[in-house]
Amino acid sequence: MEVVDYGLGDLDRVGTEIVVYENNDRYCAKELVLFGGQTCPEHRHPPFDDYPGKRETFRVRWGEVYLYVEDESADDSVESSADSDSPRSVDPPMREEHYTASEEIHLEPGEQYTIPPDTRHWFVAGEDGAVISEFSSPSFDEKDVFTDPKIDRMAGSY
Amino acid sequence: MEVVDYGLGDLDRVGTEIVVYENNDRYCAKELVLFGGQTCPEHRHPPFDDYPGKRETFRVRWGEVYLYVEDESADDSVESSADSDSPRSVDPPMREEHYTASEEIHLEPGEQYTIPPDTRHWFVAGEDGAVISEFSSPSFDEKDVFTDPKIDRMAGSY
Repeated sequence: MEVVDYGLGDLDRVGTEIVVYENNDRYCAKELVLFGGQTCPEHRHPPFDDYPGKRETFRVRWGEVYLYVEDESADDSVESSADSDSPRSVDPPMREEHYTASEEIHLEPGEQYTIPPDTRHWFVAGEDGAVISEFSSPSFDEKDVFTDPKIDRMAGSY
Repeated sequence: MEVVDYGLGDLDRVGTEIVVYENNDRYCAKELVLFGGQTCPEHRHPPFDDYPGKRETFRVRWGEVYLYVEDESADDSVESSADSDSPRSVDPPMREEHYTASEEIHLEPGEQYTIPPDTRHWFVAGEDGAVISEFSSPSFDEKDVFTDPKIDRMAGSY
């Protein structure tokens, strides 16, 4: 299991526990585990070279998840402010200015949501934690772009 | 849930119960359920047009599965006979001549196996049945080629 604190050193609040079942050149499958209230910080999966960027489906297996996704109708030129004024059920854990996606999707076991490539998103577990099956195109974690420039995805993995 | 008897009309022995979570143009994820001793009959996922054929990973979640895969070292020109003389733990359920793949992979919960495109394979659950997570490239069920010419994949789905 990969334990990621994104280089922030506050795993209980910001982190993700990951079991990769398969990641080949055609598809990827993982299990993501979040502690109660733990947040996976905002990031996107951009295109690069011939790769159109990672598309991913989150299916909640256990617990509940609040997923925040970039509102495509919002003005993308304003990267540092929230997409809209809609209230969020859960606040970002820290460094709030780097959490801009505000379209809320609440997921319970058996519910799922598919995130297009290059779309800013972050998610947080309910108080009991969560287990999420992720089905996707191939993963290239080192290509992920985090909104918070302080985050180092690869350094924060152990 | 899709219930498939492959047009053979003997669901208890030959069939598959399928829940498709996601099947888009980049990846696919399903849950496959087998009754105790139920067999998914031998087939392969051939290439067509620009598609290189379906690659798929079976991860057993519950129960046990005997998976039989074409032995790549065998003579492919002899399609109607078994690939090798290695004994199989489980016999085909009927019409044995249409079960040619004989490399046995025994899978228990937490174990998985990836099948390359265009590779003949069939599988059968242990006596208590099984639940299998399938992660794969996109599924095009209508393109599947079954070894048994009597099988009609699409007619046998209800």
